[in-house]
Amino acid sequence: MSPAPPGGPAAAGEPDPPAPSHFDEDTAVRREGDVWKATLHPRWNVGNNPNGGYLLAIAVRAMLADAGRDDPLTVTAHYLSPPGEGEVEIRTEVFKPGRTLVNVSAGVIQGGRERVRVLGVFGDLSERAGPTRVSARPPEVPPPDECVSLLDLTRRAGRQVPEVMNRFDLRLPPDSPWGRPGEGDPFEITGWIRFNDGTEPSALSSVAFADAFPPTLLGALAAGWVPTIELTVHVRGRPSPGWLLGTFRTRVLVDGLLEEDGELWDSEGRPVALSRQLAMVLGPPGA
Amino acid sequence: MSPAPPGGPAAAGEPDPPAPSHFDEDTAVRREGDVWKATLHPRWNVGNNPNGGYLLAIAVRAMLADAGRDDPLTVTAHYLSPPGEGEVEIRTEVFKPGRTLVNVSAGVIQGGRERVRVLGVFGDLSERAGPTRVSARPPEVPPPDECVSLLDLTRRAGRQVPEVMNRFDLRLPPDSPWGRPGEGDPFEITGWIRFNDGTEPSALSSVAFADAFPPTLLGALAAGWVPTIELTVHVRGRPSPGWLLGTFRTRVLVDGLLEEDGELWDSEGRPVALSRQLAMVLGPPGA
Repeated sequence: MSPAPPGGPAAAGEPDPPAPSHFDEDTAVRREGDVWKATLHPRWNVGNNPNGGYLLAIAVRAMLADAGRDDPLTVTAHYLSPPGEGEVEIRTEVFKPGRTLVNVSAGVIQGGRERVRVLGVFGDLSERAGPTRVSARPPEVPPPDECVSLLDLTRRAGRQVPEVMNRFDLRLPPDSPWGRPGEGDPFEITGWIRFNDGTEPSALSSVAFADAFPPTLLGALAAGWVPTIELTVHVRGRPSPGWLLGTFRTRVLVDGLLEEDGELWDSEGRPVALSRQLAMVLGPPGA
Repeated sequence: MSPAPPGGPAAAGEPDPPAPSHFDEDTAVRREGDVWKATLHPRWNVGNNPNGGYLLAIAVRAMLADAGRDDPLTVTAHYLSPPGEGEVEIRTEVFKPGRTLVNVSAGVIQGGRERVRVLGVFGDLSERAGPTRVSARPPEVPPPDECVSLLDLTRRAGRQVPEVMNRFDLRLPPDSPWGRPGEGDPFEITGWIRFNDGTEPSALSSVAFADAFPPTLLGALAAGWVPTIELTVHVRGRPSPGWLLGTFRTRVLVDGLLEEDGELWDSEGRPVALSRQLAMVLGPPGA
């Protein structure tokens, strides 16, 4: 699609030019001397703190630039202390330059305090060659227009909508077991997801999609808060335009420590990312 | 069991005192000034390079000491350049001290070159409190004495036994699909494992067990070498004495990039660790 001519009115029947992308704008990084700077926008907040996937995407943008590569292959974030909105500094170190793979470390700092530490391996997914065999299958769910908007569900339940949820269009199958699994079932959430402003998915944004679903345990367990301790995302492909299908599952909750294993599938049914996070159940506030 | 009295003969019928533990001895770290030192023993080698899980265990011992905690909760290793046997230096940084969780970074250096970079979160698994619910189930396999030794299998097939394989007693079920999966099957290896010298498993050694099985793809795909790019291990519990049951699975091999997802279960059927590694298929030597 071509944008409308500058200054001219859009021709009748022609779609509006694409709106600026919130994701692209809000993850922008700029070089200042030895460090990178970025500005955390509150529209990605949960309460007063930015969503972890959004924070990770900012660090990864700076790391990609330093690596001189196009794609994250694996990134691991340790969440240390949640920042607020506003400026952050990103200190990066290329600790292993390489012909194909480049390893980079980053610290995201606000108010003199490190908030997130990230390790990543970067490369070019379009230049990779090697065998392919996928035995995993995308989950079977009805198409997006037969699914239920998580935003609508949350509002109808009279529950507060975290600001970050407005950045995504996330749709659950009508019979989703999320929030009410049976005794022997995994805690699980499966659904379609895309940015709500028409931004198409990318290898970079898959690290944000990997942390965009609500916690698998939410509603099913009297947990006030399930903070992420560590999140690792493996990126296997650049997603095709359109919806992503995501599925997140918790099978081993022990003494309040749990994993969330995620898969993201693109609109052509290809697996584009695998994620795993370590999270911790904290009791309801005041408990 | 009490050791035999010093110098005295063991009483009739009393078992011999436990042999020194190769794992304990060969992962020992010593403080020298600002850094830790360790000596890589060739009995953990694959070819001329130490096994990745052994290397990780050495780094984790130094990190635990600096953290002042008993258990790794999650550790992520980036493998940069394989070291040889002999001395290594471990440079650590406690980048987030905390009341319960402590985050530490480590670099393992040999010949002035960083070989492995590690991030870890450390704590005390015995002090954790919170909900437990496990929907995962241990794989169903015959007891160890009805299984087949991988060492015997490898020797009988006339294949070379990597030195590290002699450190473990690893037993596969007689009907193991490993090395010959069907078209739609995951690449998978499941079996019992323990140290061959009687050393009991621990939270620390679970990071070594998470990399002790041969690659899921081995024998099933004409891959010469499947080096690990990144390995993350979540430790959920201190294993009870006895055998561990391990299962490792690859479901998403795309353009030569693959995950290996592992689970380790202890002798009481409890899940003690989850692992995931990102690895890369390299063609057979000379291809």
